[in-house]
Amino acid sequence: MSKPSSGLAAPNAPRSRHLAIIAGSGDLPLQVGLQARRDGYEVFYVLIAGSARRDDFDGFEADTFRLGQLGRFLKSLRVRGIRDVVIIGAVLRPALGDLVPDLGLLRHYFAIRDAFKGGDDHLLGGIVRLLESQGLIVHAPSQFLTQLMATPGTLSAARPSRTALEEIPRGQAVLEALSSFDVGQAVVVADNRIVAVEGIEGTDQMLVRVAALRAAGRLKSSVKGVLVKLPKRGQDLRVDMPTVGPATIRYAAEAGLEGIAIAAGAVLLAERDQTVALADSKGLFLHAIDWP
Amino acid sequence: MSKPSSGLAAPNAPRSRHLAIIAGSGDLPLQVGLQARRDGYEVFYVLIAGSARRDDFDGFEADTFRLGQLGRFLKSLRVRGIRDVVIIGAVLRPALGDLVPDLGLLRHYFAIRDAFKGGDDHLLGGIVRLLESQGLIVHAPSQFLTQLMATPGTLSAARPSRTALEEIPRGQAVLEALSSFDVGQAVVVADNRIVAVEGIEGTDQMLVRVAALRAAGRLKSSVKGVLVKLPKRGQDLRVDMPTVGPATIRYAAEAGLEGIAIAAGAVLLAERDQTVALADSKGLFLHAIDWP
Repeated sequence: MSKPSSGLAAPNAPRSRHLAIIAGSGDLPLQVGLQARRDGYEVFYVLIAGSARRDDFDGFEADTFRLGQLGRFLKSLRVRGIRDVVIIGAVLRPALGDLVPDLGLLRHYFAIRDAFKGGDDHLLGGIVRLLESQGLIVHAPSQFLTQLMATPGTLSAARPSRTALEEIPRGQAVLEALSSFDVGQAVVVADNRIVAVEGIEGTDQMLVRVAALRAAGRLKSSVKGVLVKLPKRGQDLRVDMPTVGPATIRYAAEAGLEGIAIAAGAVLLAERDQTVALADSKGLFLHAIDWP
Repeated sequence: MSKPSSGLAAPNAPRSRHLAIIAGSGDLPLQVGLQARRDGYEVFYVLIAGSARRDDFDGFEADTFRLGQLGRFLKSLRVRGIRDVVIIGAVLRPALGDLVPDLGLLRHYFAIRDAFKGGDDHLLGGIVRLLESQGLIVHAPSQFLTQLMATPGTLSAARPSRTALEEIPRGQAVLEALSSFDVGQAVVVADNRIVAVEGIEGTDQMLVRVAALRAAGRLKSSVKGVLVKLPKRGQDLRVDMPTVGPATIRYAAEAGLEGIAIAAGAVLLAERDQTVALADSKGLFLHAIDWP
C-alpha cells in the first residue's frame, strides 16, 4: 500500500484528487482553492462559520461548520472519500467554553482541552494531531501559494543598510533563543538594542508599541531599526505560517523602521504585489533571509 | 597594600570613611545616604541636575552636576579624597547629543559613544568601566538598602497557587534564554503561555499591555497569570537593580494577575511596606524565589 500522502506530494499522480480546504477569513482560502483546482484537485470547502462566507466560494462545493462540529466535519469528509486537508485563513482563537460541541468533539474533549493549554503552536499542533488520529493528512497551504513565498534576497527597491545587516542576525538570535517557548515570531532591533519582543499581542500591535516608544522619545530619531519575523523553530507551517502584508508595512513605517526581514520560503507575503509596492512607496526594505 | 574596596566591604574598618553617592530621582538616594551615615560613612552627594534636588539632601554635603560634567565630577571627588562610589536613583537614558560635554567627558568620548550603542546594561556597564578606569570603586547600593531586599519566600498574605508555581519557572526559563541579549527583565506567563515579554517599554507598560489584552478578550477570565521579574544573567546590580514598587502592584492588579515573583536578594522592593500592603489589599501574591 502506498503512503497516504503520496497523492498530494506528486500532484500529477492519479491517486488522490480530492482536497478539503478548511477555510477561515481572508482571501487566502480562495487562492488556495483556485490553485488546487488548477493543479487538478477536486476541492471541497469546509467553511468556518463566522469566519468564511459561502458567497466568496462561488463555483466550489462547500459547507459551513461551526467550531465544535467535529463529528459532522469528519463524517462529511468520510462520505466524500477525502483524506487530504489544508487549513488556511484566520480563525480567532476560541475560548474552550465558546465551542458548541457535537458528539465527535466530546469524544476528543481531553485532547482538545490539553491543546488549549499553552501557546498557539500547542493549540494548532493539537488540532493537527487530532485530525491525523482520524486518518486525515494535513498539508501545508504553501504548496498552493508558491507565488506568495519569498525567495532569498531583497524584494524591495530599498536594500538593507550595513546597520540593518547587523541588526537582522541579532533579531534572529533572539527569536532562536525564544523558539522553544512558543512565544512571538517577531522582534524589533534598533541600533543593536532589542526594542520589542512580540507576545500574544501580535506583530502589528508590537509595531504600534514601537511607534509609541519613538513618539515618547525613547528611540532616537537617528536610529531606525528593523522588524525581524521568522517562524519559530519547529513551528508547524502546515497550520501556522507567519505572514507579512500591507498592514505590516504600514505599521513598520509608522514605527520609523528601516525595513523588514523575513524567512525565505517560510513567511507568507499576503497580497504580495501590494505589499512590495507599499514598501517601495514608504522607502522600506523587504528582505528574505535564508531559512532555516 | 590592602585592596581598595576593603573599606566598604568591612564598614567598621578604619580605612575608607568617605562615600560619594551619585544620585538620580526618587527617595532611594536619600535612604542610601542615611544608612551609609549610620554605618559611619562621611557622605558626599553628587546630584544629577534635573533628577535630584538639593533640598532633599539637607544636612549632607552635596553638589549638583550636569550629565556631561565628567571632568568636574572626577576633580570634585579627587580633592575630597573619595574613591568609593554608589550610583542610585533614576536618570532617564540621555541621548548622546543631549550631553553638554566638559573636557573630562570629551577625553572619554569614544568609550561613552560605544557605551551608548546596545542595551541599558551596555550603557551602565560602560559608565562603571569608565569610573573604574579613573581609580574609583563602584559599590552596590543594595548593601545600604538591605531592608528593601526580599529574602526567599512569600512576602504577601496570598500565596502562589499550584498553577502559579508552574508558571514561575517557565517565566524564569524565558528570561534565562533572553539573558544574553540585554532585553527586558520581566515576562508575564498565564496558563503556561508566554503572554508578554518586556522590551524597552519597561515592566509597567508591559503590564498595561496585558491589561489591554485581557480587556480585548485575548486572555480568558479564568486565567490569571504571573509577572516574573529577575535580573538578567550578568546584570551589574551595582548600577541596575530591578525594582518592584506600589506602581508594579497596581499595574499587575489591573492586568488581572495572580501575583508577582521576584529574585530574592536581587530585586529592590521600593517602599517595601506600602508595596506589600498594597499587594495584600489587592489580593496579589508577592513571592521571592532563590536567586540565582
